[in-house]
Amino acid sequence: MSQTSRRDADVVIVGAGLSGMIAARTVLAAGLQPLVLEADERVGGRILTEEVIPGLPVELGAQWIGDTHHRMFALAEELGVQTYPQYDDGQTSYELVGSGVLGENEFHARFADELAALERVFRTLDELAAEVPPAAPWLAPHAEEWDVMTAADWYDAQGLAPVARTLLEICTVGILAVPTVEVSFLHLLFTIQTCGVTAELFAESEGGAQTTRFVGGTSEIPNRLAALISEHIVLKAPVWLIEHSADSVSVHCRGGLVATGRRVIVAISPTLAGRIMYDPPLPGVRDQLTQRMPNGSAMKAFFIYDEPFWRADGFNGQLISDIGPARMSNDTCLPGDDHGIILMFLEGEQARDYAKWSQDDRREALTAELVRHFGSRAATPEFYVDGEWSDRQWTRGCYNANHGPHVWTTYGSALSEPIGTIHWASTDTATFWSAYMEGAVDAGERAASEVIAALNG
Amino acid sequence: MSQTSRRDADVVIVGAGLSGMIAARTVLAAGLQPLVLEADERVGGRILTEEVIPGLPVELGAQWIGDTHHRMFALAEELGVQTYPQYDDGQTSYELVGSGVLGENEFHARFADELAALERVFRTLDELAAEVPPAAPWLAPHAEEWDVMTAADWYDAQGLAPVARTLLEICTVGILAVPTVEVSFLHLLFTIQTCGVTAELFAESEGGAQTTRFVGGTSEIPNRLAALISEHIVLKAPVWLIEHSADSVSVHCRGGLVATGRRVIVAISPTLAGRIMYDPPLPGVRDQLTQRMPNGSAMKAFFIYDEPFWRADGFNGQLISDIGPARMSNDTCLPGDDHGIILMFLEGEQARDYAKWSQDDRREALTAELVRHFGSRAATPEFYVDGEWSDRQWTRGCYNANHGPHVWTTYGSALSEPIGTIHWASTDTATFWSAYMEGAVDAGERAASEVIAALNG
Repeated sequence: MSQTSRRDADVVIVGAGLSGMIAARTVLAAGLQPLVLEADERVGGRILTEEVIPGLPVELGAQWIGDTHHRMFALAEELGVQTYPQYDDGQTSYELVGSGVLGENEFHARFADELAALERVFRTLDELAAEVPPAAPWLAPHAEEWDVMTAADWYDAQGLAPVARTLLEICTVGILAVPTVEVSFLHLLFTIQTCGVTAELFAESEGGAQTTRFVGGTSEIPNRLAALISEHIVLKAPVWLIEHSADSVSVHCRGGLVATGRRVIVAISPTLAGRIMYDPPLPGVRDQLTQRMPNGSAMKAFFIYDEPFWRADGFNGQLISDIGPARMSNDTCLPGDDHGIILMFLEGEQARDYAKWSQDDRREALTAELVRHFGSRAATPEFYVDGEWSDRQWTRGCYNANHGPHVWTTYGSALSEPIGTIHWASTDTATFWSAYMEGAVDAGERAASEVIAALNG
Repeated sequence: MSQTSRRDADVVIVGAGLSGMIAARTVLAAGLQPLVLEADERVGGRILTEEVIPGLPVELGAQWIGDTHHRMFALAEELGVQTYPQYDDGQTSYELVGSGVLGENEFHARFADELAALERVFRTLDELAAEVPPAAPWLAPHAEEWDVMTAADWYDAQGLAPVARTLLEICTVGILAVPTVEVSFLHLLFTIQTCGVTAELFAESEGGAQTTRFVGGTSEIPNRLAALISEHIVLKAPVWLIEHSADSVSVHCRGGLVATGRRVIVAISPTLAGRIMYDPPLPGVRDQLTQRMPNGSAMKAFFIYDEPFWRADGFNGQLISDIGPARMSNDTCLPGDDHGIILMFLEGEQARDYAKWSQDDRREALTAELVRHFGSRAATPEFYVDGEWSDRQWTRGCYNANHGPHVWTTYGSALSEPIGTIHWASTDTATFWSAYMEGAVDAGERAASEVIAALNG
């Protein structure tokens, strides 16, 4: 049993993910002393770059930013992290609803009517999403109606042909990492609204959420940020108890550290925030909210080849498939490196199902899929690695928190509203690009400004 | 900061609800030493009898048992707790879908066709539920199909007239304490199956789940049980960390107590079990399960009058209303006492909505409802009390854990399967009358027998 030790600060911050560290930096700039307590032995949270081969950083977590992620572009520039565009030359490969494997041009020609109908559905989604206030989705004019139906209910009612409906499901699960039957339609609209429009959210290129990557790996962002405030960060300090009063907080960590301060910012996902013991206990509405915001299920699998052989064949490395195991893939090559890297996404049910397989079996099934789409050279990668997030103790699922039916309208106001001296961050509480790194920065800044106003105001 | 203290046992049990104490008693009878750690300052968990007026015990928690609750009848007899039948003479009062207030006979006459159609739906539910294995609902022949739809989806598809559909919703929410749009249809069928048939589950009398009460209050059961094993129970010991290995466990409580043993039984609801820190951490599938089993929302409100005036008017004290605030009520008078007591149920959305009101406003709105149904004498109760469960730190919602879409088929096997030296109890893990006291006993006995087989086998 470790002995109790104490550290004092103005603002104690739980979690050294992007949101928590941004909050720390922001309160520090306002002349307040932050102390960030991180359960894990590293910073970064859902951002995790690992050099699976020396010199080859692979993104097991967050990977891209998009053109409207202004805070992230500014942060990267400030931290001296270079960016580069996502590779996007060539055709995507499709296999949907028994179509067999088809190149993009052939797929678009054969299913032009279906895709036009899907485009109209996207326009309708954009119109409906525009009615949702990002900071208070429960105040949307049709909030009640939209919150008792699932995204699947609404999708199924659009009369789409199977190819279009399947493509819509795959696109959506690629964002939410849960099947649409588990998601409130209001939450889907909220997600679209915080990201702009469907074209921003779903598109990979030309203004979408995944246009740009970071040289050296995304972890360069949290690592450099941590270096700026390193004396304010304690690693391997899992918080289990927060005692709070009108003017002080005591935050207890496993290992015996007790951090005291005037305010606390809890910068971890809602489901994890709900695990902490609070004294006095939080109101029922907040507690029942965090019982109802489970994290999604996502796994990324990387195949590393001697070269990106698919490029020469006119492919962009992307596939969209309802056979799977992966529903989507991506060219994830690195600048200044000759390897060909393909990333396969297992999300929602795919992540849950294939997490039960052995890694060897999973690799074999994914390899067969790549061979179907990109030919026999895909059969012999030099290296394979995959990473699942629900097994990680201090994350417990990706990409973000999901809202099932009734959660927003019943409990939504408790998501980010401070409770006494306790404030809430993490991208799951953001009102701009919630679930993305941009949202983590947005939420961290918002929580920090609440605290600054309270303490310096 | 309290100093660390240690206690050693064979089996550490988390939670002194009915399930945990039954487990303790069972392992004790097998010659093993249990130690029960209870976070609260009392035993009983979701059973809570309070003498709101001296000599007048009121059930803020579990209240009834039904004719097939054999374990509970045996337990009551063993503990010397007398039982008495639920009062059920006279008519129920209805107001549904603009019908105005109607007595039972008039209601049944006017809506005979609708009620016959509802009866047919109950028969269909019974037939479908019979296909669900209580210990493994995910193995039901149509499990996948039933688990992607909500109970509301299935109900809506039955073509019921509004009165019947509304009555079905009210009955179901009265059991599950969440709106049917939040519940997997497979979970509804599982619930019916663990309780026998719909007639058992939904009926108040003649073989239903609510035929019988306990003299002196339901808390007599946990209190007398606790008295038998009092040296094995520690109160005010909230568990925050369980360290576990192949042959030992160390269970850490706030305040410094560390209980060591060879096995641990976690006998609290899944959402609360998910808040404990486990070292080594639990598999992702177990963690994502407990993120997805939120407790329901329930509040009981009691009106105490000088006498049960409604009985003389031919009423049984029950009302069923879609105007509310309460959807249902009950005659809750005590044997050998002259007071008239009416219990009003606020469940699901009603509990959530009216929990936001002041108690005075809530009482006023409920009083108006009673006056509509039982006349002006209802306007002047001697005493009013209500109790909400999501605010209670060591319960956080009632009556039990809910399964939304996909939870059973994706994660169900992780609900009660032991993980190394960790076993799971609580009524939410039962396979017979899950969510009821009978299920708490069932689950406690099952977890105890796992442990006994492992340690004595």
